[in-house]
Amino acid sequence: MPRFNLTAIAQTNATGYPAPHAAAVRGRWVRRLGPALGLADFGVSHVTLKPGAASSHRHWHEDEDEFIVMLAGQAVLMEEGCRTLMRAGDMAAFPKGEPNGHQLLNESEADCEFLAFGRVPLGDAHYPDIDLHWSAGCYHHKDGSRY
Amino acid sequence: MPRFNLTAIAQTNATGYPAPHAAAVRGRWVRRLGPALGLADFGVSHVTLKPGAASSHRHWHEDEDEFIVMLAGQAVLMEEGCRTLMRAGDMAAFPKGEPNGHQLLNESEADCEFLAFGRVPLGDAHYPDIDLHWSAGCYHHKDGSRY
Repeated sequence: MPRFNLTAIAQTNATGYPAPHAAAVRGRWVRRLGPALGLADFGVSHVTLKPGAASSHRHWHEDEDEFIVMLAGQAVLMEEGCRTLMRAGDMAAFPKGEPNGHQLLNESEADCEFLAFGRVPLGDAHYPDIDLHWSAGCYHHKDGSRY
Repeated sequence: MPRFNLTAIAQTNATGYPAPHAAAVRGRWVRRLGPALGLADFGVSHVTLKPGAASSHRHWHEDEDEFIVMLAGQAVLMEEGCRTLMRAGDMAAFPKGEPNGHQLLNESEADCEFLAFGRVPLGDAHYPDIDLHWSAGCYHHKDGSRY
């Protein structure tokens, strides 16, 4: 049956961020729905942010469109010089190549949930606030050295 | 600002279905968010179904993954021999190539809203309940003749 039981899909708070930057997403619990449900054309993840957690560090992709829809609770969408409260039903789109780093922060005292859609990025991702850059499949310092 | 105002995006109830089959989706009002927001990697549409309207005729795609999430109201997910009530927050996935035709029907007395994700299908779409088949970019009767 295509309607699925979300809670039957495993959650993980694993991150590829190198150690100095991993703490911010420790309270980010992700269910990767695409592989679990047999979808390959696009990525779709269900994300729960515990109070205080971030969806990511503020970033933008050179070659990956992203789309989010809030399902429950609330989070603050952080962009370049801008904070926007996101509540259930609110949506946001992040076209590839727009140099406006974004992240969601759960500044509330309750969990929030959202869906995130995208595709596997092959190009670079930029992190304007921290010493991090994604390129050629791994994380680098901004001077180009590897973590 | 990536958070967008949904109501500023135009709705249409246009359909490519040939006349005998168009009536079922007359109360389906679609906002194509991808083009409006600059997303190209995947398709995303916001759909409002008026009472009595269907999202489509029951169909399945040979080469397009689909994913839906209900945002408001309720609809019945019709599949091969199965009816499932979908309420806000419920999600369903339809991997390409699974011959289980699906559609949403709004059998309630209020509007319902959902998001639908996919990609442009290049291959065939099958309609098990009616004399309709999508192939080579246009609709055919099941005997192969064009509408």
